[in-house]
Amino acid sequence: MAGTDKQQPMLAEGPAIILVEPQLGENIGMVARAMANFGLAELRLVNPRDGWPNEKAQAAASRADHIIDAVTTFDTAADAIADLNFVYATTARPRDNFKPVRGPVEASMELRNRFSADQKTGILFGRERWGLTNEEVSLADEIVTFPVNPAFASLNIAQAVLLMSYEWMKTGDQAVRPPQAQMIPAPKEHIENLMSYLDRVLDERGYFRTDDKKPKMMDNLRALFTRPGFSIEELAVLRGVFSSLEKFSPWKPRGSGAPERD
Amino acid sequence: MAGTDKQQPMLAEGPAIILVEPQLGENIGMVARAMANFGLAELRLVNPRDGWPNEKAQAAASRADHIIDAVTTFDTAADAIADLNFVYATTARPRDNFKPVRGPVEASMELRNRFSADQKTGILFGRERWGLTNEEVSLADEIVTFPVNPAFASLNIAQAVLLMSYEWMKTGDQAVRPPQAQMIPAPKEHIENLMSYLDRVLDERGYFRTDDKKPKMMDNLRALFTRPGFSIEELAVLRGVFSSLEKFSPWKPRGSGAPERD
Repeated sequence: MAGTDKQQPMLAEGPAIILVEPQLGENIGMVARAMANFGLAELRLVNPRDGWPNEKAQAAASRADHIIDAVTTFDTAADAIADLNFVYATTARPRDNFKPVRGPVEASMELRNRFSADQKTGILFGRERWGLTNEEVSLADEIVTFPVNPAFASLNIAQAVLLMSYEWMKTGDQAVRPPQAQMIPAPKEHIENLMSYLDRVLDERGYFRTDDKKPKMMDNLRALFTRPGFSIEELAVLRGVFSSLEKFSPWKPRGSGAPERD
Repeated sequence: MAGTDKQQPMLAEGPAIILVEPQLGENIGMVARAMANFGLAELRLVNPRDGWPNEKAQAAASRADHIIDAVTTFDTAADAIADLNFVYATTARPRDNFKPVRGPVEASMELRNRFSADQKTGILFGRERWGLTNEEVSLADEIVTFPVNPAFASLNIAQAVLLMSYEWMKTGDQAVRPPQAQMIPAPKEHIENLMSYLDRVLDERGYFRTDDKKPKMMDNLRALFTRPGFSIEELAVLRGVFSSLEKFSPWKPRGSGAPERD
């Protein structure tokens, strides 16, 4: 899926991603890369097991250096979110507490609204093995949880960050919607021209068999070539195929003088 | 984010995920895991570099054994989608062809609607380094591409599968559009038969002019006849038109002995 365009401005804004006691450098790197993919920039680490900086994280981050180089570290989750106005805690399932529980779409819209209002926001992600403590969850304003298959819920931390980053980008004005290669159906006269042409060349070849069958068969042909909404360009390719089949005989090196054209 | 609940029924349905020439077993395993997280089940591999089965894939799949054990392998992308009615190709960016380009949300809704109408669907994912060939893209009905940061578009294959699987699962919550009285696109093998036929009869007539132009022209033809999602019945009518043009000369009462057939 590589396709980086260095001409484009680097998106780098939005909520801080906060990893609490991450163990594996690879995961930190993959988180940075997921953030870069979807325009997030600020990564905070709480007490990473192998210290910081971490070579494995740098390697796994691929070229997300702008994120790795700007990482800040903290001793506790409370320290890491001290300057933020609004914080989500991610959990694998709703916990028994009084916080609202959101899905990723709803949470991302909330984050986008607060971002637009110049609030500082963040999302807390827990340890690889057992997530956030109840105390850490209690630091957050709301909970976000993912709509996974209840029988197989094993999102890793980089995947969870990827989904939140992706939803964040989707909420943005600058979210890059794939340009619609919108097909414009050809004006109907192009279809009529095609039908006149087919009427002639098929009639010449006995395609319609009997005169009374012809109107229904023409209706079927018109339906066939109208239904797809062919563009002018597509109709031109189609016409080229018909012409080739109609005008040219198979070229056979028999030297028998088989006619090139009818 | 662990939180698997063995009491819950395992979701296992929806579009087939098709990986074309995947190189790393770890990626295949991560793909299986992403699929399991979001309730997909059917994984097809086209010509995996290290053969199949693959120990590294099994290890990386964690406990997604039901997916790994059911993997099927194929020699070509065309073979892998032969029985499917509707197929997406994933690309890093829109290509220069006639296919509609969708985002993941829109594509997932389309897949969900077709699933509800008992159609068989699939999503093609390309090689780790350079994706799908133009010819492989031309096999698909539509393209899906991801709204990534244009300046940092480096989704790996497991992440791309994760996002599509996640969007697929999200569409399950929503009211699905009432099934439309829509045409069921013919299984892909019907398109392949048509292409083989056209390859032969057009080649015989010098349609492709030069050998180096032929692959691109064939891609365009495949795009032209794939895009409308022709039903089996429509393809039969189309084939009848081609046959008539190809086999029969205009009947002209000149008595010149023009051949009735080639």
